[in-house]
Amino acid sequence: MITTGPIYRSEKVYQEVSFEGHTLKIPARRIGLTTGEHFDVYDTSGPYTLEDPQLDLEKGLSPVRTWEPAEAVPASEEHPELRVQTQLAWARAGIITPEMAFCAAREGFSPEFVRSEVAAGRAVICANRKHPELEPMIIGKAFAVKINANIGNSAVTSSIDEEVEKMVWATRWGADTIMDLSTGKDIHETREWILRNSPVPVGTVPIYQALEKVKGDPTKLTWEIYRDTIIEQCEQGVDYMTVHAGVLLRYIPLAADRVTGIVSRGGSIMAAWCLKEHRESFLYENFAELCDILAQYDVTFSLGDGLRPGSIADANDEAQLAELRTLGELTLIARSRGVQVMIEGPGHVPMHKIPVNVEWEEDWCHGAPFYTLGPLATDIAPGYDHITSAIGAAIIGQAGTAMLCYVTPKEHLGLPNRDDVKVGVITYKIAAHAADLAKQHPRAQERDDALSRARFEFRWHDQFALALDPDTALSYHDETLPAEPAKTAHFCSMCGPKFCSMKISQDVRDYAAEHGLETVEAIEAGMKEKSAEFAESGSRVYLPVVES
Amino acid sequence: MITTGPIYRSEKVYQEVSFEGHTLKIPARRIGLTTGEHFDVYDTSGPYTLEDPQLDLEKGLSPVRTWEPAEAVPASEEHPELRVQTQLAWARAGIITPEMAFCAAREGFSPEFVRSEVAAGRAVICANRKHPELEPMIIGKAFAVKINANIGNSAVTSSIDEEVEKMVWATRWGADTIMDLSTGKDIHETREWILRNSPVPVGTVPIYQALEKVKGDPTKLTWEIYRDTIIEQCEQGVDYMTVHAGVLLRYIPLAADRVTGIVSRGGSIMAAWCLKEHRESFLYENFAELCDILAQYDVTFSLGDGLRPGSIADANDEAQLAELRTLGELTLIARSRGVQVMIEGPGHVPMHKIPVNVEWEEDWCHGAPFYTLGPLATDIAPGYDHITSAIGAAIIGQAGTAMLCYVTPKEHLGLPNRDDVKVGVITYKIAAHAADLAKQHPRAQERDDALSRARFEFRWHDQFALALDPDTALSYHDETLPAEPAKTAHFCSMCGPKFCSMKISQDVRDYAAEHGLETVEAIEAGMKEKSAEFAESGSRVYLPVVES
Repeated sequence: MITTGPIYRSEKVYQEVSFEGHTLKIPARRIGLTTGEHFDVYDTSGPYTLEDPQLDLEKGLSPVRTWEPAEAVPASEEHPELRVQTQLAWARAGIITPEMAFCAAREGFSPEFVRSEVAAGRAVICANRKHPELEPMIIGKAFAVKINANIGNSAVTSSIDEEVEKMVWATRWGADTIMDLSTGKDIHETREWILRNSPVPVGTVPIYQALEKVKGDPTKLTWEIYRDTIIEQCEQGVDYMTVHAGVLLRYIPLAADRVTGIVSRGGSIMAAWCLKEHRESFLYENFAELCDILAQYDVTFSLGDGLRPGSIADANDEAQLAELRTLGELTLIARSRGVQVMIEGPGHVPMHKIPVNVEWEEDWCHGAPFYTLGPLATDIAPGYDHITSAIGAAIIGQAGTAMLCYVTPKEHLGLPNRDDVKVGVITYKIAAHAADLAKQHPRAQERDDALSRARFEFRWHDQFALALDPDTALSYHDETLPAEPAKTAHFCSMCGPKFCSMKISQDVRDYAAEHGLETVEAIEAGMKEKSAEFAESGSRVYLPVVES
Repeated sequence: MITTGPIYRSEKVYQEVSFEGHTLKIPARRIGLTTGEHFDVYDTSGPYTLEDPQLDLEKGLSPVRTWEPAEAVPASEEHPELRVQTQLAWARAGIITPEMAFCAAREGFSPEFVRSEVAAGRAVICANRKHPELEPMIIGKAFAVKINANIGNSAVTSSIDEEVEKMVWATRWGADTIMDLSTGKDIHETREWILRNSPVPVGTVPIYQALEKVKGDPTKLTWEIYRDTIIEQCEQGVDYMTVHAGVLLRYIPLAADRVTGIVSRGGSIMAAWCLKEHRESFLYENFAELCDILAQYDVTFSLGDGLRPGSIADANDEAQLAELRTLGELTLIARSRGVQVMIEGPGHVPMHKIPVNVEWEEDWCHGAPFYTLGPLATDIAPGYDHITSAIGAAIIGQAGTAMLCYVTPKEHLGLPNRDDVKVGVITYKIAAHAADLAKQHPRAQERDDALSRARFEFRWHDQFALALDPDTALSYHDETLPAEPAKTAHFCSMCGPKFCSMKISQDVRDYAAEHGLETVEAIEAGMKEKSAEFAESGSRVYLPVVES
């Protein structure tokens, strides 16, 4: 049921890093090349990609974070009376935690740099202390762009087993975090299975479970039910939580004339509640208390964009912007109480309106990491919204978004299955990597170069192995040329043997080398000589026809 | 074997436009909506999507361009002695042709505007007078972004029938032009079948056929063989031709240290020839004569980028730029001889280096329409290069590229099959449409709005029908909820009935309307009233916790 074992021509390796008496085991995937060399890549897959992972799903993974947390420190200058144990408060107190050291080693930065980014609120380490199984990772503009995969059943489809496999499957292909958006039955149990077996941070939207507790009637929700749900999920080990506390009563009419109204599930639930009660939501009213609960576990806020646009027509409208400003206010409150914050972003936005979203978010939300859903660059391609949104995601990633929430081909149409999850993850790895290249992340281009070299040298196995999805690359190649000799052949079926540009290009290079024609100077010297020859012989003159 | 019949809930309609005694039949696809309204979209599919198309593949399509061409006019001010019959020369002489009127009606611009764009060389109408079957279309920055689908067999796979079906299939889903890149046997016959049955312009790379004539040895190529091939293809009705005349001998060493050398098939062939002969290519030397042949048929140049980068590492390098400057010189020569010109562009380019490509092209190539292959925004995802390149294509389209050459999932791995062609076309329709939205093309957003309204109102059939690929949208929806009642249900399996934000959002809107809470003012008035009520009753006060 659960997918295990190494990815094509890869092995899981751990770099051991000593930190204050602990040995941190930093995971990587080592891709073996046919040249005898290897290439290590960032790896999110946990122990599942070991040769023999020795799993016990009922027990869960072995803890990674075996260290004791540091002492509590004051939450902030504004609230020195609150003493908390969060990555944010420690970072501000100048303390480098094992989690920071782990993230630093994983990404190739110094621990001090990681600390300073966390202290500034520009990066977050989502790591509930009740989720020791996770391998720490960092989300922030200065680091590699991360991706999230949503899983979770709905009332209509899917089972617990399937959801655990979706988590394993999504992280196998590169999901940096997963969100369990289950809304059907067995929410608690599904989440428990996922958490105990997840090597990556797990996020949730607690209002979904709260709503199940009141049988789906938003107007029956209360702060008490919600608070108890939050505590239940904090206790289980959820690492970050989407909270739609920015949906204020007076913003609801701003969404009234939209083409697609409110498209966030949490946002529409809170809007229904606010309007019926005719007051601000219990999330907004009790935000400080909410912060203090999250601080106890070091759970990170993902402040939800309940009023995000759900169509091109609604992009960057006043409802969206008003809520974002409020999220900025809430960010300061959360930070003052020692809680880490991310900000969620749209949605559906045409390309020319995308970059300004990052500017607003950084400005109004004090540099908190931005975490966007796509955005989809057009509404007209249901069935392909992984692609419409990858365009937007790459652009918003380039502009500074720290984490991209994937969209699968089933968006707007149904619950994604296992294949959809993989396509969604790979598509978002593409968007994130394209953004890393555009941001000139120090290590991003190494993999492109390694793959392109393999391509040019017809090392087909290496080209597949270095690909984001080796299995698909291999199977596409083998559709027309399945035999093993084709894996070293100097062509593929795209152009055939005579028309392979890479083959001819290599021949050209060899010829130039043999004949000493490798430089512009050599070419020009040869031209002169040949000109003279031709003039002497009186034969055909080949003056270029370029006239002006 | 050939796919015919209407697309989901659509019918082919023709708008009749009178022009100088002719009746131009402008094609469109009319999408019927469940509201009784309809929505017309630009349609490239020709008669194949008629209810009963009455085809005779051996005979080909009935001619669309039944008019006599206008009189020959001077090619240009520089060459008044050359009298030609090309769209460019006519446009410069102030003559509006039926082709221009056709394109104008098709895109919603005035014929005079079309003429002025063609006259300036900023737009081209690829329409060989020997291809009367085509429905005229225009390629230029001011118009909707177009897409091209490459088809054609290689020595390894595929047959003539398959290639004709690929053409029909590609245009069914929206390909504005197709290129026949066949390199195997039966090149002439394959092309004849495609041309006689193609409602869209057909492009080729004549050097491929020339190379077949010399059994694949580039060094055996001669101007005479190439010239005869060009004439053969002009006579058949090819509408535009890729000519790699900008690969100069002195540029070849610039590509020597590249990670992926020369990745254009035509470019590598010409480089091999130039280096072996140690002289400029016969394409460059005989460019003026080549122009005069193309002018006789009004075939458009697609000046090929033989030195385009084939990897992120090689993007925007000196080899690429040197060739582009030469293409600019050749553009002026072609125009002076009355020939229309497009310029081909990369390739593999990271996002931050994409927009400047359009600036250089417009600047150096005198505003000629840019026609790019992707570009791929990263090298690391073989198997998904339709997506890596759609990211680049959308961005370069936004920056001003007039036509995008599609990339299929099989790029770098093998010859695309029928499914790959469809995925490639739909993916590029997405990129082109995203670019149209970003460029704020006057009519682009209408379709997004129509689809989003259908989505919000749970008109599932309309949502599918308005999608770029209705069949896939429908089948994805039906995977979990196949029954007909689900096509009007206020939810899908993604969120289930209780959690549909659109459903709740509509409930919220209804509630607000019923209770007179549709404006910010009404909300605030109600808040005050309720505040007073609560104060009087002494019950719970709900001051927001926002502190700063």
